[in-house]
Amino acid sequence: MQVVIIGGSDAGIAAALRVRELDPDCEVSVLLADRFPNYSICGLPYLLGGDVADWRDLAHRTREDLEATGMQLLLEHEAVRIDTDERAVHARASTGAEHAVSYDRLVIATGAGPVRPPWPGIDSPGVHVLHTMDHALDLQDVLDESGAGSAVIVGAGYIGLEMAEALLQRDIRVTVLQRGPEVLSTVDASLGAPVREELVRRGASVCTGTAVTAIEETGGGLRVLEEDGREWDGQLVLVCVGVQPTTDLAVAAGAKTGERGAIKVDQQMATSLPATWAAGDCAETHHRLLGRARYLPLGTTAHKQGRVAGENAIGGRRRFEGSLGTQVVKVFDLVVTRTGLRDQEAREAGFHPRTVHVVCDDHKAYYPGARHLHVAVTGDDATGQLLGAQIVGHRSSEVAKRIDAVAAALHARLAVDELNDLDLSYAPPLGSPWDPLQQAAQQWLRET
Amino acid sequence: MQVVIIGGSDAGIAAALRVRELDPDCEVSVLLADRFPNYSICGLPYLLGGDVADWRDLAHRTREDLEATGMQLLLEHEAVRIDTDERAVHARASTGAEHAVSYDRLVIATGAGPVRPPWPGIDSPGVHVLHTMDHALDLQDVLDESGAGSAVIVGAGYIGLEMAEALLQRDIRVTVLQRGPEVLSTVDASLGAPVREELVRRGASVCTGTAVTAIEETGGGLRVLEEDGREWDGQLVLVCVGVQPTTDLAVAAGAKTGERGAIKVDQQMATSLPATWAAGDCAETHHRLLGRARYLPLGTTAHKQGRVAGENAIGGRRRFEGSLGTQVVKVFDLVVTRTGLRDQEAREAGFHPRTVHVVCDDHKAYYPGARHLHVAVTGDDATGQLLGAQIVGHRSSEVAKRIDAVAAALHARLAVDELNDLDLSYAPPLGSPWDPLQQAAQQWLRET
Repeated sequence: MQVVIIGGSDAGIAAALRVRELDPDCEVSVLLADRFPNYSICGLPYLLGGDVADWRDLAHRTREDLEATGMQLLLEHEAVRIDTDERAVHARASTGAEHAVSYDRLVIATGAGPVRPPWPGIDSPGVHVLHTMDHALDLQDVLDESGAGSAVIVGAGYIGLEMAEALLQRDIRVTVLQRGPEVLSTVDASLGAPVREELVRRGASVCTGTAVTAIEETGGGLRVLEEDGREWDGQLVLVCVGVQPTTDLAVAAGAKTGERGAIKVDQQMATSLPATWAAGDCAETHHRLLGRARYLPLGTTAHKQGRVAGENAIGGRRRFEGSLGTQVVKVFDLVVTRTGLRDQEAREAGFHPRTVHVVCDDHKAYYPGARHLHVAVTGDDATGQLLGAQIVGHRSSEVAKRIDAVAAALHARLAVDELNDLDLSYAPPLGSPWDPLQQAAQQWLRET
Repeated sequence: MQVVIIGGSDAGIAAALRVRELDPDCEVSVLLADRFPNYSICGLPYLLGGDVADWRDLAHRTREDLEATGMQLLLEHEAVRIDTDERAVHARASTGAEHAVSYDRLVIATGAGPVRPPWPGIDSPGVHVLHTMDHALDLQDVLDESGAGSAVIVGAGYIGLEMAEALLQRDIRVTVLQRGPEVLSTVDASLGAPVREELVRRGASVCTGTAVTAIEETGGGLRVLEEDGREWDGQLVLVCVGVQPTTDLAVAAGAKTGERGAIKVDQQMATSLPATWAAGDCAETHHRLLGRARYLPLGTTAHKQGRVAGENAIGGRRRFEGSLGTQVVKVFDLVVTRTGLRDQEAREAGFHPRTVHVVCDDHKAYYPGARHLHVAVTGDDATGQLLGAQIVGHRSSEVAKRIDAVAAALHARLAVDELNDLDLSYAPPLGSPWDPLQQAAQQWLRET
């Protein structure tokens, strides 16, 4: 059996590894448009901020590690056409030579590309996006060579904030522009506010409620223009306003698409094309609580979906059990995390959500170093079902892994009240007899 | 309705608070033998180590906080007899006066006392145990006044190790004697070993495989004698070999007892006595995975059981959903945690357990500060059911809250394989796309 995988990032490599793990007799070829197999896209800000010295360190596995599993890597092979009748992917090598790679089963893992809004000037020199290693290396060249002294970051989502930290670490003056009323629109504004304060404390200018309309070149750099006439100058502009699925190939082959134009898949990650699966940022993601597809491009999801797609491509029947939209970001010493649905998302989906916000200590206050955690818990008033949680706190407060207990509880469809039954860990330097999640759950129940 | 609660530590106060929360018209009286309501027993080592300056800081709530909820606190009232016919608790005040306190419903939360092995010399001056505030204040007086230069700690469980850290912080020479082959017998020896190494690195002498037979007074202090002739000298000896339920009152009133002599209760925390519930260290604990009672005295459990007992004492029908034996301890910069069943416990209970041990990074290795985590996952080979996990790692690695995701998964009776479906959090400075728990789960499945 010949499995061909288009794309060598998280989803594609996860699929390839799973095939080789389950059936060492199966031939696996991975086509990569670039020369960076299995690189950590999530790590790019840390390369640019100087935390990671060498871009090669960002590989989850080296080329040699990957080839040692028996998969074939076709680097700098751009897939240009999928022929579902002859079951072949036509690819163009960097030499310009085209050839067809035959498959019995195909996994499409073409990922996503950064959204480039149709602003005049978006293509000016000095305007950057950040989604691939090539983007990162381009930006790194600029930073290393010209030593930009100022930058405007458009978009205060995960990448935008991580890049704000990265550039501030390099002593670059940073202005962050956010369209919404608060940074990190993926969490409630009251959890985003401390992140904005942390950025400002570290020297960034943060402006919310912005409406960028154009970018223009000035003598020494660039100017970002807003609808209301405000202008923001920087030697470089970084546009971090989200990603969109890369689906040209799949669409040209006739694949159905869904949410945000992502490739439509079932829970086994099968597409509408014969013998073809899709996974990762190019595909839809089943949301476990909504019970329907969303476009939720996340690294963790890409790994899981790739593993499922690989297993099923060779005859498995594994289901992708769904995303909860769990996310976490570190911004300097603050960590913000969420899982499940927020009030508004839940309401739009037909739930009857109510959210409580509590502030409590990360561990017993009598033990030195206790810090406040801000915990939000959302539940359904009609059924008592737990719907989601958000936490912000100091990076020493185990914030990231606190959300994981909620993710497990959501996975199992527990009620808010059942959080109180969970046997969570406690020692005075590390927690409380009633964990902060339980304190929030009890507050939620009191307000019922 | 008059609810009387015997005991004012975690379980008793949790019960009292719950009654007052649910029914502000209900009268609640809490009888305490001592004058320390709602103190954190788990915090005593931190008082003695100097992390906590004032013993009053160890109160979860002050007397005023408690009384503000409307409960009545009868401090220094030792309950001497329960009369189930007349529904009264006979108590002796510190003045010596005896009187009867009538109840409609009774909650017994008399806690536990430290085990004092029948060794010759166990009652010598300078031999200490540590379970109550009085014990702690006694020991603190000794440490402050005579300034003991050396101590022998018998027992390397949670309290023994926390006290080793505490005494080392005070520049006291510490020898830890452990009966078993490794410290912390509540986790696998391979996870206990790094804890022993950390203690030794911090200056403690640790001796395992010991068999203490007696303690004798020497000129300047005490000598702990072993079966094989070895002797250990110290100016004080701290015996930390576990606790036993305090049940004299309940037993005299006719309460049935079970495991380790603890008061027998059903999952509603009802005892065999009429209109009487029990909670906390004096009572049995339903183990969720074993489906039967164990003696598992833990602070978190005491709070949960107390809350359930309080609710049910006034007509509720809440069930204590069971303990998983989740525990965590910090020893200097190491954190060790566990939940669920270990191999041997599971085998004794009729499961077909298999445990994998994996070592992985706490976050992506390319981001600075990555440290190794040692993760053990136990599952049932016959059914695939997840049975438990253990983790040891640096205190910066979010070890304590990592076990909570497992506790939630165990609560929901997930399979080992289902850990791979959990949407756990990831950002490069904080985790991996496949969480260490998932890496361990995948290793467990590979070895099937």
